[in-house]
Amino acid sequence: MTLPNRILVTAMVTRLSGEDGVVNQAIMDRYVRFAKGEAGLIVVEATAVHRSKSGPLLRLCDDEFIPGHREMLKRMRAAGPSKVALQIIHFLKIARSGWRQTVDMLSRDEITQIAQAYGEAAARVREAGYDAVELHMAHAYTLSSFLSARNKRRDEYGGRSLEARLRLPSEALLRVREKVGADFPVGIRFDGEECIKGGYGLADSKYIALRFAQLGADYLSLSAGGKFEDAVKKENEPLYPYTGYSGDRTMPPASYQDGANLYLAEGLKSFINAHGYHTSVVTTGKITTPKMAEEILARGQADGVGFARALLADPDWPRKARLGRVAAIIRCIYGNLCKNLDENFKQVRCGSLWPREYLHAPEAPDDADPPVWPLSGAALTAKLNENGQVRLTWRAALDPQGVYGYEIFRAVNAGPFVHLTSSMTPSHVDEYALAGNRYSFFVRAYDFAGNRSTVSNTATIDIDPGFAVPADKTITLNGQVEAEKGYAA
Amino acid sequence: MTLPNRILVTAMVTRLSGEDGVVNQAIMDRYVRFAKGEAGLIVVEATAVHRSKSGPLLRLCDDEFIPGHREMLKRMRAAGPSKVALQIIHFLKIARSGWRQTVDMLSRDEITQIAQAYGEAAARVREAGYDAVELHMAHAYTLSSFLSARNKRRDEYGGRSLEARLRLPSEALLRVREKVGADFPVGIRFDGEECIKGGYGLADSKYIALRFAQLGADYLSLSAGGKFEDAVKKENEPLYPYTGYSGDRTMPPASYQDGANLYLAEGLKSFINAHGYHTSVVTTGKITTPKMAEEILARGQADGVGFARALLADPDWPRKARLGRVAAIIRCIYGNLCKNLDENFKQVRCGSLWPREYLHAPEAPDDADPPVWPLSGAALTAKLNENGQVRLTWRAALDPQGVYGYEIFRAVNAGPFVHLTSSMTPSHVDEYALAGNRYSFFVRAYDFAGNRSTVSNTATIDIDPGFAVPADKTITLNGQVEAEKGYAA
Repeated sequence: MTLPNRILVTAMVTRLSGEDGVVNQAIMDRYVRFAKGEAGLIVVEATAVHRSKSGPLLRLCDDEFIPGHREMLKRMRAAGPSKVALQIIHFLKIARSGWRQTVDMLSRDEITQIAQAYGEAAARVREAGYDAVELHMAHAYTLSSFLSARNKRRDEYGGRSLEARLRLPSEALLRVREKVGADFPVGIRFDGEECIKGGYGLADSKYIALRFAQLGADYLSLSAGGKFEDAVKKENEPLYPYTGYSGDRTMPPASYQDGANLYLAEGLKSFINAHGYHTSVVTTGKITTPKMAEEILARGQADGVGFARALLADPDWPRKARLGRVAAIIRCIYGNLCKNLDENFKQVRCGSLWPREYLHAPEAPDDADPPVWPLSGAALTAKLNENGQVRLTWRAALDPQGVYGYEIFRAVNAGPFVHLTSSMTPSHVDEYALAGNRYSFFVRAYDFAGNRSTVSNTATIDIDPGFAVPADKTITLNGQVEAEKGYAA
Repeated sequence: MTLPNRILVTAMVTRLSGEDGVVNQAIMDRYVRFAKGEAGLIVVEATAVHRSKSGPLLRLCDDEFIPGHREMLKRMRAAGPSKVALQIIHFLKIARSGWRQTVDMLSRDEITQIAQAYGEAAARVREAGYDAVELHMAHAYTLSSFLSARNKRRDEYGGRSLEARLRLPSEALLRVREKVGADFPVGIRFDGEECIKGGYGLADSKYIALRFAQLGADYLSLSAGGKFEDAVKKENEPLYPYTGYSGDRTMPPASYQDGANLYLAEGLKSFINAHGYHTSVVTTGKITTPKMAEEILARGQADGVGFARALLADPDWPRKARLGRVAAIIRCIYGNLCKNLDENFKQVRCGSLWPREYLHAPEAPDDADPPVWPLSGAALTAKLNENGQVRLTWRAALDPQGVYGYEIFRAVNAGPFVHLTSSMTPSHVDEYALAGNRYSFFVRAYDFAGNRSTVSNTATIDIDPGFAVPADKTITLNGQVEAEKGYAA
């Protein structure tokens, strides 16, 4: 399988399916929208291999589910050049009471059935016409719980040795290979680090990767965290595995550094490479710009770069990058409203950047006219409030085809302007203004086609140095670090 | 202040003090032992700036505590060339019930007193004859809780802006500077990442570092985690802040990759450097070998390399590195028994490597005779047990001055032998043996002077490939990655 580029849409829950688990119109629309954007590989959301009650999640536990996938694939292939994989998943039972089934409760028969269900579902993935199948072994789900350092079984599938923890995941992979044949790509998504107390880290996951490479997996896609063990229980709701610290690590919020989980792909890839295996390794987790993605590939830290939230926010990211229209990318602000929607059992969309009435990313391919400011200008102002925050406000821009949002740029002292965040509404609060510095801001409106308005007036604010900077110190902030982010203003 | 080398003993709780908070014989012995080892800077354990009931922890809230420190310093300086800093700390109240005081409960007067207490204690640090003072702003303690993204105050010292979270830590630093003068080195230890849900990460800590640099701190020593927010409550015991995931990140156990927190020092140093500040940055967290430490310095990832557990295990690490006797270093196995002792309110020692009767690291400077194997040999055997683990056993070595322990080396397939772990007793269980591979082991005994025995016989075990390696795959494990660890066999 040769991908048109090394960009992956990694599997994301959408909650767009009905309770019946079949591909419906909303699901098709979501993935056709991704296909228009030209990502190299689109991994369609986790689809259950078993009949378990699963809420609005896709299922592939029977041949009757195949036609919907076939139809979706036909439409996706008409829309763009992306290859398409389906992620398949097994999960254990959870109850509103807080009770959850754990791997140590499973009988040997049930374990055998899990490997078998993966094999049969994978055969259906091939039958449906997908280019590849991805086995979900990450986060809080069954195979990940077998891999876990907190697997409590005491038999050959249990926690006393890495070999035992690897047994069912290995069996599932081999059963899948047996069913799909040697020529069908099989990927595995698993945690490079569990990010929970007593969980495994890179010291284990490098061996897990080596085993999967030895068993002939075609790619390894790394995630992190997303475990039940540190999840926060809400009354009368089943436990949601992305509510603890480990959930933050799966989808690092804005407060995390870019590429927060990159060390996992890098460490694991160098390990398997040193052992003679060259299975493709995919990294994910707050990779922000085409420049950053390029550098990761150029440095050999990973073979592919995966995005979930960034491509949800703008499915056209890969196409815009190919066309050199990087400035037209609608930039994810890592506000995790998408995650909150999932957590609250609602249909997943970009709540930070899409206008409320859109279920999918807006588009307007024929709109060549950028938004404009009112005749009286943007009138951007920056005021320090009593909490030490800088509050920005400006006038709404105008565009007959609709204004999508505003990009906010900031310069510190004599440094360059760099993109700080984006907002759908004409205001923003900057909580990172420190005493003794001068901050300058401008904003720019953009529309559904990605056209940009002219920049607003610049608003500048000097924060009283107070105690923060002794008189004998000169501040020489030059913004170099932020300027490296790779999005030109 | 010029250090004899860039190795730091970072502050470690010892629980060796009495309830009276004065320097006693055990404390003196512990730090004199470190001084013999020649670390560049020894940071003596967290010492309370206030009168709060603190268990067996040092205090410096009054001049009466100074003479003990003066005496200890005299003895340390007689023992070796190390510079010596004292870490000073303020902590809030905790109760066995689980109740704990949080920063939002403090009155403005109490806040002012905290900055003042830091200033006064710092003056006593200088008065006692220390070379530097280090302000504890990491983990679960007062100033760290002000810096925290989970600071719940709503005033100028509160969580609504980074400036407000920085206010008290900044005031404490300025008050300390005012009291100790411009020429006395002031370091700050703080978390590069809180490692809790909703905690701050590098995105915030780079600004925190910049502020401390702007205020004239002389070094920044990075830690991670160690928070109350994810600590596990034990019945009838006050909450201990290193029992959750964030505690694992403070003292990464064996299952973590080497240098697990290095990205924090690296990210933050490059940020402040880019902004024109060159305050020394110290990294810590599972830095395992002199080679690794050298590389960190050579690459410019940090200006100093700190060790807690590794230098607890072997205080002579710096001296041995200087003398090129790297193979004689007693290697920390990151078993965290030291942490468990602290957690259980016991005197802290190396429970993994020191014979039970030793309160401090054993030494035998005049012993030139290595341990020997019994005439019948070591008789090392390796057996696979039913859990998929390899169980090693061998005969005890002999040494009239005592055997300290055994180093265990492992080779995978045709790869080189590398140090796997160490053990005080003649047995070990390897949980990382994977099907389809050949594992070879040898062991070597060492004594209190670091003399090594000859190597034992080699025990080899082939693990049945079973399903793990399809017939068409060749295993080419070459051990390259482990071989880079830098400890020659």
